[in-house]
Amino acid sequence: MTLITGLAVHDVRFPTAAAGDGSDAINRGDYSATYVVLETAGGVRGFGLTFTNGRGNELTCAAVEALGHHVVGHDVGELCTAEGARTLTADVQLRWLGPEKGVIHMAAGALLNAVWDLRARLAGVPMWRLLAELPTADLVAAVDFRHISDAITPEEAAALLDRGLEGYAERLERATREGFPAYTTSVGWLGYDDEKVRSLTRQAVKDGWTAVKMKVGGPIDDDVRRAGIIRSEIGPGSLLMMDANQVWDVGEAIANMERLVAFDPYWIEEPTHADDVLGHAAIQRALGERCRVATGEVGANRVIFKQLLQAGAIGIMQVDACRVAGVGEVLAELLLAARFGVTVCPHAGGVGLCEYVQHLSFFDYLRVGRSMEGRMIEYVDHLHEHFTDPVRVAGGRYLLPERPGYSVEMRPESIAHYAYPAGPAWSA
Amino acid sequence: MTLITGLAVHDVRFPTAAAGDGSDAINRGDYSATYVVLETAGGVRGFGLTFTNGRGNELTCAAVEALGHHVVGHDVGELCTAEGARTLTADVQLRWLGPEKGVIHMAAGALLNAVWDLRARLAGVPMWRLLAELPTADLVAAVDFRHISDAITPEEAAALLDRGLEGYAERLERATREGFPAYTTSVGWLGYDDEKVRSLTRQAVKDGWTAVKMKVGGPIDDDVRRAGIIRSEIGPGSLLMMDANQVWDVGEAIANMERLVAFDPYWIEEPTHADDVLGHAAIQRALGERCRVATGEVGANRVIFKQLLQAGAIGIMQVDACRVAGVGEVLAELLLAARFGVTVCPHAGGVGLCEYVQHLSFFDYLRVGRSMEGRMIEYVDHLHEHFTDPVRVAGGRYLLPERPGYSVEMRPESIAHYAYPAGPAWSA
Repeated sequence: MTLITGLAVHDVRFPTAAAGDGSDAINRGDYSATYVVLETAGGVRGFGLTFTNGRGNELTCAAVEALGHHVVGHDVGELCTAEGARTLTADVQLRWLGPEKGVIHMAAGALLNAVWDLRARLAGVPMWRLLAELPTADLVAAVDFRHISDAITPEEAAALLDRGLEGYAERLERATREGFPAYTTSVGWLGYDDEKVRSLTRQAVKDGWTAVKMKVGGPIDDDVRRAGIIRSEIGPGSLLMMDANQVWDVGEAIANMERLVAFDPYWIEEPTHADDVLGHAAIQRALGERCRVATGEVGANRVIFKQLLQAGAIGIMQVDACRVAGVGEVLAELLLAARFGVTVCPHAGGVGLCEYVQHLSFFDYLRVGRSMEGRMIEYVDHLHEHFTDPVRVAGGRYLLPERPGYSVEMRPESIAHYAYPAGPAWSA
Repeated sequence: MTLITGLAVHDVRFPTAAAGDGSDAINRGDYSATYVVLETAGGVRGFGLTFTNGRGNELTCAAVEALGHHVVGHDVGELCTAEGARTLTADVQLRWLGPEKGVIHMAAGALLNAVWDLRARLAGVPMWRLLAELPTADLVAAVDFRHISDAITPEEAAALLDRGLEGYAERLERATREGFPAYTTSVGWLGYDDEKVRSLTRQAVKDGWTAVKMKVGGPIDDDVRRAGIIRSEIGPGSLLMMDANQVWDVGEAIANMERLVAFDPYWIEEPTHADDVLGHAAIQRALGERCRVATGEVGANRVIFKQLLQAGAIGIMQVDACRVAGVGEVLAELLLAARFGVTVCPHAGGVGLCEYVQHLSFFDYLRVGRSMEGRMIEYVDHLHEHFTDPVRVAGGRYLLPERPGYSVEMRPESIAHYAYPAGPAWSA
C-alpha cells in the first residue's frame, strides 16, 4: 500500500500557434499541458498530463484541483482499479459536467495517468512492461465494464489477455530488436504552402519514413493538389494517411473522398464530427474497401469507442492516452478493439502524447493485438526536448522505452520557462 | 445593432444535497448556477445560466470567462446567428476541450442564452414570443446545420417553420387559455422512503397532477415496490414516468424494464449511458410498443440528438435549455425532433430549468411541433423563489409567461446569499 500524500498541477503552454505548426482544418493551438505531479511519503513521484490546445488549459488545471481529493490520501493500487477510477469519473456532483467527457474527464486522465506512472516507478519498470506483465486478473480489475458489458465482458477480456501470454517472449524479443512502426505528421499541416509540403515530404523520405500523414479539409481542389504532391514524392509503395479534423459533414466527406481515394489513402481520419458514430459508419460504408475510416483523438470515452466498433464505423481506432480517464479506460478501448478485430494506431503529436502512446502500442503488441501488421504510432517531431525521457525514433520506428514510468515527466526548467502566464516564455 | 459592453459571472450554489432532494441513482447535488449577466450601453441587461450539480460550478464559471471575449464587444444580432454562435463553439483553441460538450459547451450555453435573453428584452417580449414570431429566415439563420445536414437541411427546416405559421393564432389562443401540460418529479426521489413517496404522491394527486415521475435504478426489487406504491396512488388513468439516470448497462436495462413495464410507464428515461445511441436503440427495440425510451438532459449536442433520432432510439426527446449552446442549438434539436416525428418533453428541475424550458415548449407548440398531445414539461417545486419571474404552475399546467426575456433573472438577494464560497449560505 502506497498513499499519495500530495498533488501539484502546472499550467504549461508552448507558443506554437504563431508558426502554423499543428494547424489543421479546425485547430490552431498553443500546445499545452495540464501537468500533474503526485507525491508519496517514500519520495517516489508520479507524473501525468493532459494535452490541451492553449486557451482553456486553466480549466483542465482547475478540474484537476476539483478532483484532487479523490487522489490525495488514497492508495495507488486502489486507484488503479475500476472502482478507484470511478471515484473520479462518477463523482456524484462532478459527473454532471461530463458525464465522462470534456474538461472533467481529461483532468481525470491526467490524474489517473500520474497514478499509474507512480505505480510503474514504484515497480521500477516502464509502463509497457508493467502492463504487459501484470496478471490477467489485475488488468481486468483495472477496466470499468460499466456501460460496455454489451460489447465485452470481463470473461472475454480475460480470455484475450490470457491469449496474449502465448508467444510473449518472442514478441518482446522482436519489439526490442525492431521497435514499432511510426508515421510522420510533420509534412502536411494546412498552414504550410505547396513548396514547404514538397520539401518536407522529400526530406521525410530521405529520413526513412515510409508512412506520412497530410491534413485535408481545406478547399477540396487544394487538398487534391497537395495529395498529388505528397503521393508523387513518396511513391506508390509508401502509406499516405489523410486527416480532415472533423470539418466535413457526412455527405461532404463522402463526396470529397470520392476524389481523394485516387491517391490511395491508407485511412481518412476524423472525416466528420467526433461524436457522430452513425456518420462515420455511413462514410465507411460508402468507401468500402477503398479506404479505412479512422478516429479517436477526441473520442470522449469507452462508450463512444464501443459504438464505433459495434456499428462497423472504423477500420482504425486511434486511442488517445489522456482524453479518457487514463490507463484503465485505454485498456478498455484496446480490449474492445481486439474483440472487434480493429487495428489500433494511437493518436500522438501535441505535447507528451508520443511519449505516452509508445507504451500503449508496445503493450498492445505484446499482450492484446499481438501484431504490428498495419499498425503505426503517430510521430510529430515537436517539443520532445522538454521531457526527461523523450521518445527515441530512428528510421521511421519507435524504440522500446527503457526507463521506469510513463515517460511524461517534464524537465523542471521547461516547466518554469513555459509556465502560464508567469513564465518567461509568456510574460516577456 | 446593440453591442454587449460588459459581462459578469456569478457562482451561485444552493445546499440541496443534505436533504436528499434531487437524489437519484447517480447524482446527489447542491443545485447550482453559473449565472451570467450581460451589459449594454443602453442599460438593458441580459441574463443566462447553466445548471450544475454543486462542486465544479467554478469550472463552468471559469469557462464563461474563457469564452467571454467572443461576446463582449460583439453585437447581439450577430451572436444570435449560427456564425456568431460558432465563434464560441468552434474557437480554434477551446474546441479541443469538447468538442461541443461538457464544461466548455455548458458555458457557451449560459452565454448564448444571456444573449438571446437580451434580444428578447430589447424587443420587449417573452422568449417564446420572440421565437414564435420571428421570420422563418431568421430562425433558420440561428441554426448551425454543420454536422447535421445529413438529417435536416436549411430548406427542410424552413418548410417546417413556415408550416408553423398556419393556425398560429388559434394555438396562441389555446396556449393562453389552457397553459401547457406539466408533470411532477417531486414524489419519487431515491433518497425518500416508501411512506414519504406514498404521502407525496397522494398529495400530488390532490393538487391536480395526472402525470408523475419516479426515480429507478436502485435495487430492482425496491424499484418494483415503489412503482407499485405510486401506480396504486395515481390510479390507472394517470401517467407514470420512470428515470434511471444512466445507471444501467444495456442488458440490465432491458431485463429490469421487463419487470417495470407491468406498471405501464409512459417512458423510461436515461436507461443507460447518455452517449450510448446504439444502446438506447437496442433498449427501444426490446421494449417496442410497451414503453418509450426518453433521454436528453445530458445529451451533449445536436450531433448526439441527430443520431438518437436516426437510429430510432427514442420516443421522447428531452431537450435541456443550457447543456447545449443556447437557444440556437435548442432550435436545431426541436427541428430535428419535428423532422423525425418525435415528441419533445424538456428536461427541467434543478435551478432555473423550469423557468427556461417553458418558453421552449410553448414555442415548439406554437411554431414547430404544433401539438400538446403526449407533451409535458417537467416540473419540480424547488428554488423558484430565487427568480424575478418564476414559473406559474396551476392544476398541473404551466401558464404562458408574460414578462420579457427568458425568465432566469435571479433576485439580487439570492445571488448575494448563495454566492459560493463567500455568501452567508456557505460561509456560515
